[in-house]
Amino acid sequence: MGVSDTAPLWERVHFDSNGLIPAIATQSETGEVLMMAWMNRETLRETLETGRAVYWSRSRGKPWRKGETSGQVQAVLSVRLDCDGDTLLLEVDQKGVACHTGRRSCFYLEIDRNGNVRELCAPEVDPDELYGGSSKG
Amino acid sequence: MGVSDTAPLWERVHFDSNGLIPAIATQSETGEVLMMAWMNRETLRETLETGRAVYWSRSRGKPWRKGETSGQVQAVLSVRLDCDGDTLLLEVDQKGVACHTGRRSCFYLEIDRNGNVRELCAPEVDPDELYGGSSKG
Repeated sequence: MGVSDTAPLWERVHFDSNGLIPAIATQSETGEVLMMAWMNRETLRETLETGRAVYWSRSRGKPWRKGETSGQVQAVLSVRLDCDGDTLLLEVDQKGVACHTGRRSCFYLEIDRNGNVRELCAPEVDPDELYGGSSKG
Repeated sequence: MGVSDTAPLWERVHFDSNGLIPAIATQSETGEVLMMAWMNRETLRETLETGRAVYWSRSRGKPWRKGETSGQVQAVLSVRLDCDGDTLLLEVDQKGVACHTGRRSCFYLEIDRNGNVRELCAPEVDPDELYGGSSKG
């Protein structure tokens, strides 16, 4: 089993000129938007086959198996594609926090209509505990 | 009032090499993810100042005032930025349906772990009623 090269999704999913597609991760049941990251063909395939979220790290230029450093893994319960085939929506069960700052969601900065920015919440976890000084993941 | 060129957000928001940033729209109260589209500096400014979602249409190369053709406008209740400053999250009140296919959300295609694709729901509205033969919006 698994995702063959002739599976129907490959006709529907459109990767950008860098071979990437944005993937939005939401927490199952609450629906909270946790983060947005990118996948390429191979990390999308690995995500579907393993049931764990695997992104493509643009900064490091390699697969980013979410939680491989921090332990904050994402079990993937469903994967959806949008009408244009150019964005993915993941329903996940996030272990711990999604954000490398130690917050549950990456979207903790609110912009008001005058362009001011404020933090909506403090970290729940010390980032040093998650990474011990290494890069995020 | 409004968003000046020296407003704090401009130091926090990072546009990509095309001058764009992805913006995820969620329905207020339910939190449902409706769609993902793109903004540039000017359409983000207009969104903040007017309280209506204005995206940048990559295909048409011009501002896309959501609902200007279809009437399916999005009132924007809040705008959030993520930890890396490269994705926006909008809380909106969607009038009618968000998707140009006549569905409430654009994410109506489910991909299973073998790479098969199925539609989760049918259109609620006939797209011809929304656009009368014109392009989406």
